[in-house]
Amino acid sequence: MASIERRSIAFDRDELARFDRHARKRGHKNRSEAIRDLIRQRLVEERRQDPEARMMATLTMVYNHHDHDAQHSLIHLQHRAGAMIRSTLHVHIDEDNCLEVLLLEGKVRLLTGFADAILSTKGVRHGKLVLTSA
Amino acid sequence: MASIERRSIAFDRDELARFDRHARKRGHKNRSEAIRDLIRQRLVEERRQDPEARMMATLTMVYNHHDHDAQHSLIHLQHRAGAMIRSTLHVHIDEDNCLEVLLLEGKVRLLTGFADAILSTKGVRHGKLVLTSA
Amino acid sequence: MASIERRSIAFDRDELARFDRHARKRGHKNRSEAIRDLIRQRLVEERRQDPEARMMATLTMVYNHHDHDAQHSLIHLQHRAGAMIRSTLHVHIDEDNCLEVLLLEGKVRLLTGFADAILSTKGVRHGKLVLTSA
Amino acid sequence: MASIERRSIAFDRDELARFDRHARKRGHKNRSEAIRDLIRQRLVEERRQDPEARMMATLTMVYNHHDHDAQHSLIHLQHRAGAMIRSTLHVHIDEDNCLEVLLLEGKVRLLTGFADAILSTKGVRHGKLVLTSA
Repeated sequence: MASIERRSIAFDRDELARFDRHARKRGHKNRSEAIRDLIRQRLVEERRQDPEARMMATLTMVYNHHDHDAQHSLIHLQHRAGAMIRSTLHVHIDEDNCLEVLLLEGKVRLLTGFADAILSTKGVRHGKLVLTSA
Repeated sequence: MASIERRSIAFDRDELARFDRHARKRGHKNRSEAIRDLIRQRLVEERRQDPEARMMATLTMVYNHHDHDAQHSLIHLQHRAGAMIRSTLHVHIDEDNCLEVLLLEGKVRLLTGFADAILSTKGVRHGKLVLTSA
Repeated sequence: MASIERRSIAFDRDELARFDRHARKRGHKNRSEAIRDLIRQRLVEERRQDPEARMMATLTMVYNHHDHDAQHSLIHLQHRAGAMIRSTLHVHIDEDNCLEVLLLEGKVRLLTGFADAILSTKGVRHGKLVLTSA
Repeated sequence: MASIERRSIAFDRDELARFDRHARKRGHKNRSEAIRDLIRQRLVEERRQDPEARMMATLTMVYNHHDHDAQHSLIHLQHRAGAMIRSTLHVHIDEDNCLEVLLLEGKVRLLTGFADAILSTKGVRHGKLVLTSA
C-alpha cells in the first residue's frame, strides 16, 4: 500500500480558501486528498508526453454495426494489436450503433497509433483514447 | 442507415494537400470520411456544452482495492446512480489496483456530477469522463 | 500583497518524489510554489465554467491582411465590443498574414461570444481564446 | 494569396444539417469556410506535436509587479530568449498585477521550454502558451 508522508506547504490564504470551497463542491472530504488528486493528474499528463512510457488506456468508440466492412476492419485491427488489448466491453446502444470500450496496455506510441487506426476506420463514428497510469 | 449527400466545398489548395497527407497518416482511406470525422467531433464537443443534452459516456477510473472505504463509497454511489449505469468493465491491473470502466447514459449535468463524485472519492487514484454521442 | 499561510499536507511518498522531479524539470524552485501553481490553474479552469464570472482574456488570431472584407469585419466587431478590449498588439508575420492579440476583460459569456464572432470571420485563419484570472 | 479549389465531399445528411446550424450559431457565413476552419485547426494541432516545427506563439501571463525577484527573473529569461521574442504587450490590471503577452516565433520545443521557464517563475501567477501557424 502507498506510504504517506506529511509536509508543510505555504499557500496563498485567499487561493486556499477558494480551493477548499471548490474541492468540497467536487465532493472531496479533505484538502490533502484534493491536492494529491491534482498532483496525480499532472503526473499522468506528463507521462502521456513520453512515447516510450508504458500506460493503461481505455479506447471508447461508437460504430455502426450494419457496416460489415467496419466490423471486418475492427476485428482485423484488434487481432493485430494482440496482447495490447486486455479486455473489451460491448453495448448495443440503438438499432444501428454499438459502443465498445477497449482496455489497453502498452507503450504510449503504440497506444496512440492503435487508437488512430481504429478511429479512422470507416464506420467508426466517434471515439476517444484515455491514457491513465498503470 | 445514414443517408449520404454530396456537396461541393471550396478548399485552400495548400491546406487541402496538407490535410490529405495528415488524414492518410492517421489511417483514413478517403477525404470525405476524414472531413465527416472532424464534423462529428465538433458536434460532440458542442453537445457536451449543453447540461440538458442526453449523451453516452464512459468513466475510466483506477482505484486501490485494498481500501475498503473506497469500495464501500463506490458501491454506494453506483447504486444511487441506478439507471444511469448501463454496464461495467473491471480489470485487476496489479496487486493493489483495479481499473474500472463504467458505461453511462444520461443528461450531461448528471453525468458530470456523478463523475465528480466518483473521482473525488478517497482511494480513487485517477480517472476521466469521455462524453460521446448517443 | 498576498498573505501566506502554512498547512501540513499528507502526500503519497512515491507521488511526491515524482512530482518534485517533474516540478524541477519545469523550472520550479520549490514545492510549495509548484503546488500553488496547480491550485491556481484549477481555480482558473473552474471560473471559466461560470458564464457570469468576470475574467481577463487574450485572443490570438492570424488573418490575411489582403482580405479587405476581413479587415472591415474585424474593425466593425472590435468597435461594437467597445470597453471589452483593453489593448491590442499587431505584428506583420509575412507578406500575407498578420498576427493580432487582443487583450480583453469582461464576463465569460461575452468574451466567448466575441471570440466566436472574430474567429468565424472570413479571412481569419486561426485563433485561440485564453481566459485568465483578473 | 491562397488559391482555392472546389471538391465534392460526401456528407451524412443529418450531421451536415446539424453542422450548418452550429456554424451559423458561431457566426460562419458559409459552409466551406466553416470546414476550412476545422481543417486549419487540425493542421495546427498536428504541427504542435512536432518539436522541430517552426511556429508562432503567444504566451499570456499574469504576475505580481511588486515581486522584484519575479521581475528580475522575467527580464533575465526574456533576454536569454533573444530573437524568439518578436513583440510584447504589457497592461496594468490592478494595483498588484500585470498582464503580459509575449509574441514568440521559433521551434516548438524551444517555445514550450521557454514557456515552462516563464510560467514556473516565482511571482508568475497564471499563464498559457498558444501555438499558431506561421
